[in-house]
Amino acid sequence: MSDFFQAHQKTLDEAVAASRTRDFWTPYPEIASGKIYGETAKEDGASAFQARLDCAFSLPDHPADGPPVGAETSPYGGDLGIKYPSASVASLIDAAKTAGIGWAAASIETRVGICLEILHRLNKNSFEMAHAVSQTTGQAFMMAFQAGGPHAQDRGLEAVAYAYAEMTRTPHTATWTKPQGKHDPLVMEKTYRVVPRGVALTIGCATFPTWNGYPGLFASLATGNPVIVKPHPGAILPLAITVEIGRNVLKEAGFDPNVLLLAADEPGAEITKQLVTHPDVKIVDFTGSNAFGTWVRENAGSGTKVYTEEAGVNSIVIASTDNFKGMCSNIAFSLSLYSGQMCTAPQNIYVPKGGIDTDDGHKSFDEVAEAIKVAVDKLLGDPDRAAGICGAISNDAVSERVKAAESLGTVLRQSETITSLPNARTATPMILKVGESQSKAHREERFGPISFIIATDDVAQAIDSASALAAEKGAITAAIYATDDQTIDAAADAFSAAGVGLSCNLTGGIFVNQNAAFSDFHVSGGNPAGNACLTDTAFVANRFTVAAIRRHKAA
Amino acid sequence: MSDFFQAHQKTLDEAVAASRTRDFWTPYPEIASGKIYGETAKEDGASAFQARLDCAFSLPDHPADGPPVGAETSPYGGDLGIKYPSASVASLIDAAKTAGIGWAAASIETRVGICLEILHRLNKNSFEMAHAVSQTTGQAFMMAFQAGGPHAQDRGLEAVAYAYAEMTRTPHTATWTKPQGKHDPLVMEKTYRVVPRGVALTIGCATFPTWNGYPGLFASLATGNPVIVKPHPGAILPLAITVEIGRNVLKEAGFDPNVLLLAADEPGAEITKQLVTHPDVKIVDFTGSNAFGTWVRENAGSGTKVYTEEAGVNSIVIASTDNFKGMCSNIAFSLSLYSGQMCTAPQNIYVPKGGIDTDDGHKSFDEVAEAIKVAVDKLLGDPDRAAGICGAISNDAVSERVKAAESLGTVLRQSETITSLPNARTATPMILKVGESQSKAHREERFGPISFIIATDDVAQAIDSASALAAEKGAITAAIYATDDQTIDAAADAFSAAGVGLSCNLTGGIFVNQNAAFSDFHVSGGNPAGNACLTDTAFVANRFTVAAIRRHKAA
Repeated sequence: MSDFFQAHQKTLDEAVAASRTRDFWTPYPEIASGKIYGETAKEDGASAFQARLDCAFSLPDHPADGPPVGAETSPYGGDLGIKYPSASVASLIDAAKTAGIGWAAASIETRVGICLEILHRLNKNSFEMAHAVSQTTGQAFMMAFQAGGPHAQDRGLEAVAYAYAEMTRTPHTATWTKPQGKHDPLVMEKTYRVVPRGVALTIGCATFPTWNGYPGLFASLATGNPVIVKPHPGAILPLAITVEIGRNVLKEAGFDPNVLLLAADEPGAEITKQLVTHPDVKIVDFTGSNAFGTWVRENAGSGTKVYTEEAGVNSIVIASTDNFKGMCSNIAFSLSLYSGQMCTAPQNIYVPKGGIDTDDGHKSFDEVAEAIKVAVDKLLGDPDRAAGICGAISNDAVSERVKAAESLGTVLRQSETITSLPNARTATPMILKVGESQSKAHREERFGPISFIIATDDVAQAIDSASALAAEKGAITAAIYATDDQTIDAAADAFSAAGVGLSCNLTGGIFVNQNAAFSDFHVSGGNPAGNACLTDTAFVANRFTVAAIRRHKAA
Repeated sequence: MSDFFQAHQKTLDEAVAASRTRDFWTPYPEIASGKIYGETAKEDGASAFQARLDCAFSLPDHPADGPPVGAETSPYGGDLGIKYPSASVASLIDAAKTAGIGWAAASIETRVGICLEILHRLNKNSFEMAHAVSQTTGQAFMMAFQAGGPHAQDRGLEAVAYAYAEMTRTPHTATWTKPQGKHDPLVMEKTYRVVPRGVALTIGCATFPTWNGYPGLFASLATGNPVIVKPHPGAILPLAITVEIGRNVLKEAGFDPNVLLLAADEPGAEITKQLVTHPDVKIVDFTGSNAFGTWVRENAGSGTKVYTEEAGVNSIVIASTDNFKGMCSNIAFSLSLYSGQMCTAPQNIYVPKGGIDTDDGHKSFDEVAEAIKVAVDKLLGDPDRAAGICGAISNDAVSERVKAAESLGTVLRQSETITSLPNARTATPMILKVGESQSKAHREERFGPISFIIATDDVAQAIDSASALAAEKGAITAAIYATDDQTIDAAADAFSAAGVGLSCNLTGGIFVNQNAAFSDFHVSGGNPAGNACLTDTAFVANRFTVAAIRRHKAA
């Protein structure tokens, strides 16, 4: 049973090391190439996805005392037509508890080996997953491949690595020898057991079901807790495939596959609240809105460990730059990628009303704003290219929010549909201009392709306003453009104190939206954008306790 | 400023290593000997304590906008007469926040060095502390020396070691190099900062002010949070001395001493609730009752990290023994030590109604119960010896509880006062006999020298009942006596699942009440006896977040 552990031990060791050095590292190539994934991988993935459509999704031995459910529609148009097995909350909890007994008793190495094998198989299946993610979330195919496949697998592996490091921090056995002066020492033999918390619940989101779901799922699984995966009703397929693969590995390894369960439901008939409040649910991982995040935190059982990624308002402060063109292009891409529907996407761009110094001379506030707008226009000028960057809009609420945003400021750039995707729900970035003191509109999260260029009195006000907003409303990313260290240091102090990581002077192939596994921390847990960081030690360390058994050493 | 770090680095390195090997280790000798602590240490400690009495306790530069407070009385008789500076909650929070800025900006090494120096000076002061602990809690002097001095310092050091390991898990700086095929790699320079949570509150208890207070205090302090220490109004002096020593070290190192504050108050006018609910309090460590622990957990701010040690019902299961005499003596000592006022003291002793097999032949239930009673009688037969083991009763509520317990079962041993301590509030162990199915009395915690010997149908029912009670009401310790591995394994499974460590067949110089730093985990966080383990990684890892600053590497 620990064959899987041996097979993947090198990967595990390297992952643990990477989490400490924080250099780039991944075992899961992000390039969607046949040379890496196999010459037929692309076609195989496409056919596998096609075969899922308009069918019942089969999960052998899964509780299914309810009618099949599923109402997923593609943001690119059309229904997926997939029906998933459904089960009552009571059946899911019972199945998880039953399966959890054997899982809790398994060795650390056995469990971790199984998690690594699941990730390995998910990686091999990245092309099918790319279709599943793209057609449920609206992400463009290439982004869905990377963010839904290898990058999500990285985040799962990161959680496994942290969990392994933390579980093995305490030895299995120890001998405790206390000197007693001239007398014989007191000698105790001790054994230590990892004791899982109990049933874990992972609540998936509509936009990044795997990337945001895997940290909690794998952290709970590795630490011995059976996991019920509750996908967003609009993005079930990526997590259903994940559960299918996981159950296959569990079964092969001799475990009850109900260690990993799917709690599928339909819009308007969600079972999330019943699951969250069930007394046997001991761990909840949630990604979604602040409103529901608050509900989850307040209504989960008093002993339940709750880890949330909620929402926030991400900001860029522009003080000065030695690469004006590069800056505008970089920001334009950050605003456009997946139509601003990333939790890491910037919404607010603060610029001093007196303008900024650049390598291209002084630029007024309006010139900076205009240059960003033009950079977006250029980036998205070709409809095919626009489709590849923006993808589609996840759901109608986002589209409606974009329309309603017109009145929130001076429209600098109007949102448009993407002509090369006539059947899809699309919207390119809307950009508004407002004054920091005149507007309140930018002080709320407006999820989707909506951004504000905000005139401030000066750079100090820009940093103050952006970081104060991060502390008050939450933020997951922040960026500064400045040519002097003093301004960068001031921004670093302000955003660090507000619990946000800071990207400085991004002008090339790195974007503020991107958080790299093993190197960048995602969410800090230090502001309202989430109560936890995914992934760090605190994210895994409380998913289990350690029980000791001690006795006198036999003579 | 990092002189302190250098001075104590060996201690720190050994502490981190001990937390991983979990062998016996301590830099703070538990033997109250002049050879170790200095020939005059005993007398110096006694005079220092005497000089505290009937005086104002001076804390230079401490907020003091309220009238001096203090109403401590000794369980051995008499008022302490010490008046402490008092301050409004607003003043305390303001002072903590102001001092916290510089503390947050200090390096990990500087902060950890200061914590180690504070512990070092506390150790040198162990004799005065022994008097302070004994005269506020009622612990006998030798126990107060060990538990209030070196053992408490061990627990503080353990927290510092975990905090240091966790803060240095992530490097200060990293270079992230992502290959780009034939192109130049993307290279980012990253720096990582430990960002403290904010103002921390440590709520002390009446019985072990230092042992239970130091883990949270030092965990918060090491991770950069200013700490307000709110002692129990009945046991202020030990924590006031701790704060005094800490402030001296902070000042010497160039910090605002208000990094460490005392929130003294008087019975009936406690300011605990105001502190717990203050929006600027981000961390709360609490030791005390389930009732107030529940209040703290439910009323602290939604973003506040709360760590509690509450109460539970600790059990011993007797299945069989190959050392009947040793077992009875060992249990007698556990029941008597500090008159059962340890959170680790056993309350319930489960014995099969059909009796047990021993090295001295089969013993009936009544014979086992009687032998334990006789062992207690023998242990406490000499009044001076009884005083040295039992000490005094912390407060009137405990004495009243003992009186009220008479009606809860068949009295096997009546509680008595200790004649050698005529002025003290004393009570030796009361032991009652009940039937598992006939009684509910033993299913509640009855803090103090009250224990139950409980007749069960068989060993299986004993293990089931004791472990189920631990899961339901909480427990911090458990013990089993059995000559066969099968029974021990069954108990280990049951108690581990209930979140309790298990001691097996203790018949010598180790007692179930004793938890050794660096080796035994204290409280699991896995049952209602507390929501956290003190100390493990989870206890420290969420007292700070990590903020990253990243930029392109300069060409």
